[in-house]
Amino acid sequence: MPTYTAPVKDQVFILQDLLKIPAQDVPGYEDLDRETSEAILDEAAKLAQNVLAPLNVVGDQQGCTLENGVVRTPDGFLDAFNQMREGGWTALDCDPDYGGQGLPYVFATAVGEQFSAANMAFNMYAGLTHGAYSAIHAHGSDAQKSTYLPKMVTCEWTGTMNLTEPHCGTDLGLMRTKAVPSGDGSYKVTGQKIFISAGDHDMSDNVIHLVLAKIPGGPEGIKGVSLFIVPKFIVNEDGTPGERNTLSVGKLEEKMGIHGNSTCVMNYDEATGYLLGEEHKGMRAMFTMMNEARLGVGLQGYAQAEVAYQNALEYAKDRLQGRDVTGTKNPDGPADPLIVHPDIRRNLMDQKSFVEGARAFAYWGANMIDRAHGLNDKDADGLISLITPVIKGFLTDKGFEMATAAQQVYGGHGYIEEWGMSQFARDARIAMIYEGANGVQALDLVGRKLAQDGGKHVMAFFAMVTDFIKETKDRSDAFERDFRGPLKAASKDLQAAGMFFMQNGMKNPNAALSGSYDFMHLFGHVCLGLMWARMAVTAEDKLAEGAADTAFYETKIATGRYYMARQLPMTTTHLKRIESGADTVMALDAAQF
Amino acid sequence: MPTYTAPVKDQVFILQDLLKIPAQDVPGYEDLDRETSEAILDEAAKLAQNVLAPLNVVGDQQGCTLENGVVRTPDGFLDAFNQMREGGWTALDCDPDYGGQGLPYVFATAVGEQFSAANMAFNMYAGLTHGAYSAIHAHGSDAQKSTYLPKMVTCEWTGTMNLTEPHCGTDLGLMRTKAVPSGDGSYKVTGQKIFISAGDHDMSDNVIHLVLAKIPGGPEGIKGVSLFIVPKFIVNEDGTPGERNTLSVGKLEEKMGIHGNSTCVMNYDEATGYLLGEEHKGMRAMFTMMNEARLGVGLQGYAQAEVAYQNALEYAKDRLQGRDVTGTKNPDGPADPLIVHPDIRRNLMDQKSFVEGARAFAYWGANMIDRAHGLNDKDADGLISLITPVIKGFLTDKGFEMATAAQQVYGGHGYIEEWGMSQFARDARIAMIYEGANGVQALDLVGRKLAQDGGKHVMAFFAMVTDFIKETKDRSDAFERDFRGPLKAASKDLQAAGMFFMQNGMKNPNAALSGSYDFMHLFGHVCLGLMWARMAVTAEDKLAEGAADTAFYETKIATGRYYMARQLPMTTTHLKRIESGADTVMALDAAQF
Repeated sequence: MPTYTAPVKDQVFILQDLLKIPAQDVPGYEDLDRETSEAILDEAAKLAQNVLAPLNVVGDQQGCTLENGVVRTPDGFLDAFNQMREGGWTALDCDPDYGGQGLPYVFATAVGEQFSAANMAFNMYAGLTHGAYSAIHAHGSDAQKSTYLPKMVTCEWTGTMNLTEPHCGTDLGLMRTKAVPSGDGSYKVTGQKIFISAGDHDMSDNVIHLVLAKIPGGPEGIKGVSLFIVPKFIVNEDGTPGERNTLSVGKLEEKMGIHGNSTCVMNYDEATGYLLGEEHKGMRAMFTMMNEARLGVGLQGYAQAEVAYQNALEYAKDRLQGRDVTGTKNPDGPADPLIVHPDIRRNLMDQKSFVEGARAFAYWGANMIDRAHGLNDKDADGLISLITPVIKGFLTDKGFEMATAAQQVYGGHGYIEEWGMSQFARDARIAMIYEGANGVQALDLVGRKLAQDGGKHVMAFFAMVTDFIKETKDRSDAFERDFRGPLKAASKDLQAAGMFFMQNGMKNPNAALSGSYDFMHLFGHVCLGLMWARMAVTAEDKLAEGAADTAFYETKIATGRYYMARQLPMTTTHLKRIESGADTVMALDAAQF
Repeated sequence: MPTYTAPVKDQVFILQDLLKIPAQDVPGYEDLDRETSEAILDEAAKLAQNVLAPLNVVGDQQGCTLENGVVRTPDGFLDAFNQMREGGWTALDCDPDYGGQGLPYVFATAVGEQFSAANMAFNMYAGLTHGAYSAIHAHGSDAQKSTYLPKMVTCEWTGTMNLTEPHCGTDLGLMRTKAVPSGDGSYKVTGQKIFISAGDHDMSDNVIHLVLAKIPGGPEGIKGVSLFIVPKFIVNEDGTPGERNTLSVGKLEEKMGIHGNSTCVMNYDEATGYLLGEEHKGMRAMFTMMNEARLGVGLQGYAQAEVAYQNALEYAKDRLQGRDVTGTKNPDGPADPLIVHPDIRRNLMDQKSFVEGARAFAYWGANMIDRAHGLNDKDADGLISLITPVIKGFLTDKGFEMATAAQQVYGGHGYIEEWGMSQFARDARIAMIYEGANGVQALDLVGRKLAQDGGKHVMAFFAMVTDFIKETKDRSDAFERDFRGPLKAASKDLQAAGMFFMQNGMKNPNAALSGSYDFMHLFGHVCLGLMWARMAVTAEDKLAEGAADTAFYETKIATGRYYMARQLPMTTTHLKRIESGADTVMALDAAQF
């Protein structure tokens, strides 16, 4: 059975050495010194490693079941959820006014990575609740906030988001679910929603559904969509769960993975709902959840790659097969361990260099969110808005690719469920789809985000890269060759791609949109290249300062060199594809395919 | 539920127009004119589409079960197997001396593609039998051949190959299974074998296991391995199955996919076995099966991509979501079909251009086998030996990637098992692993095949590409720009990679082996690029001749242009990675990871 070890050392390196969190002027950051950070992450690691990780395979094998209209979660999930609640882990970055601990988002991200790597399907129950919490926190009335938030912060009540219907996912303007005013300020919500993660289960006293629906007579399409709070049990005056609402689980979906999470078809039959935010402004409120969810999904992507990598690495060290062509490494054994073979190393280094780069990238993004919220920093807000589709799309595509690569290290055993490697790939697969399929992320990036505020944010991104390149021009020859040179080349590819879109996208939007997916990946590689170059600077400086743990910093540099030499060159191919334009992409009529 | 339509038109195009099978001087080819080919492929299509394809989901959902030591196959499998046998489909390219139909291998490949696309797990029962048939046919005594082959040609008896043991897969020298002479010419085989596809089932009267084992006292390691025929029921003098042999199914493996195939742990307990070929020369005999199996697995890779693509295409045409940014295409509907969106097209074109290129490549490879066998053509034999790891490794990696891409077109529905797209990806995944994991294919290519016969075969491959480039220098400007130019550039990348290996691999084998995986993919892209350029020439010539079906040939050219513009540029990145050498790959000690 696979195991998981929380990468606390690397997490602390990024928070403390790379991002220098305590030195930033963000409210709340001053408390997060190295010792405190380490202590909290070590404590989280105990829950992740000892409680959540062992339940991962259990959840996959048992799945959820629907019995008499009630969803049963796998054995051990309730106990684990209680431990998570009792440890206060669900309240980490929530508002202290409602019982939260008020820690910064970047810190919740680090803890979330651990929980997600240990048991993705399980952690979604709390993850969805947090998303619903954020939407109510941002858009709810004071009464709504005081009714729901304290219970959601503790996960006594969990939350969901209800967008998709059988005939519409991305195109929510086609939505049919209706909300008719009852006359008492509430609404009667009727319709069917599908793919509702954590839609029902036996681990909480109430489930607070956030449901998108149309109020009859409102504007057509997406502009007529409103958001409603629709609790499973209608809340009494005294705040306790009361009457059962007229909503039910239609069925549980049989999925490729995340079997431990209950993915429900939800039927609303004149269910009592309460408007959240303004009428017909539901999409705005929903995007509060969506943006947070997209970052969380990006994190799931590399977290699955992390745990898969850890296990592949152990297997590669243990499994004896073949001999090192340059000379036997294990003369007393019948064969050398897999890890001596160059192609196994290539595979492991692909995984390692991706995961560590992705971690830095995700925490950097979380840092931008903290700056945006804590300092009302519009530039940080613009940057993270630009980068969100890259974090979601790139980290989940690569996360799945790497989980699959880790499975490959096991050979035939990787295909046998008992060994657990298939689950990492199957679970990671959903991250490329939900919260907006990755093609939609690419569309959001190229179709909306690039031009947002007159292209200001992408210019700010380029300036950030250019500044870094300037600042590092007098470092060592090795840095120039291994990091700065490759980063310069990759960022030139990104700028050329942006230029191509500017020159061609106006007269033919398809010329830009045909390259959107490649652009998202090109952008992702430049981001990870930048993170690696920054980490190399940090590590070199640490070594120059005479830091004790030389092996850690040297490994960091060596891993970064791999990324720059072996992964970053993808930018060349992405640019070539982009510059080939829409011509070959759009050449065929639909009937010709 | 997904459907499958056999691509007979495209198959005939490759066999007749591209490869010009009837005009080649290979024995048996003269009978395969267009009408005959089409008629047989149409007949095969009926079985594939109407019988095998509907059982694909059934096999996935029911899987196989082990009851009282006997494996039960899913509902409908036996009936389908009977139809396959009765139609003579298992005997297609088998030796007429043993009841086969003596058709060329290239033709069996085309039929095999259909069956594999329709139901991969099911088709493996016949596929493994064919491999065992080939090994006995090539290495068996006359008595062995007459005992086993007639029954295996008809699949009254099925076959298996037993290589892997719990502690060894690739490194078969570590094998522990023993074969002790009984004194009567037979052997007592004892040991455990794992991952035995079609290891046992309820669809045939006997199962003929080919088992690798060591005869005590023989040479150490791989040189002491012999191959044995170990039937489930020992065959009586009169050729009927007799006494039950002392072998049993230890368990059925729970796998990520191909649930319809029984993957068994096989226990041999002094089972009666008969030496096949010479003592200690078992690997040679086994490789007769392995090489054939590797080509068959490459075919499985793109066949899964084909059927996944077909369904993704239909979904993209049917599903209404969003509007074409360049103007509404379906003004009477609530939204436009997915296929209007550039990124959906990019995805579909990736799939289409891969599958059609792969088909040409696989048939071309099969044609080389027919030339090698039918004409005793050493050059063809050398070429296919060189190319086999590329067909296996590249087509299965890309096949899985494309099946995953097809799943993505479905959005959330792609993750729900009911829709069937997950199965294509899960089934395709094994093809990257079995018959030698793809890393081992890359090692075989770079470590063995490149240097085989003094590098003669890779030189012949380069000459073939160069000749084509020369021959086509006076075609149209469009051909130059869209096909010849990109092919030249890609083949230059391949030659540069080969040169890098020659210059660096001698002093440091790791410098070559670190780039082996990228080289395999680079090679694959050049092969598909060559196939596409050839197909474009064929299609252009057909159009110039005034062929009737202009839409087909125009689509072919447009699809090829896509491949050259959007897929072939991967060669640049592969070359860059290769040229970065072993330095970053091998930088870390195992303990540093």
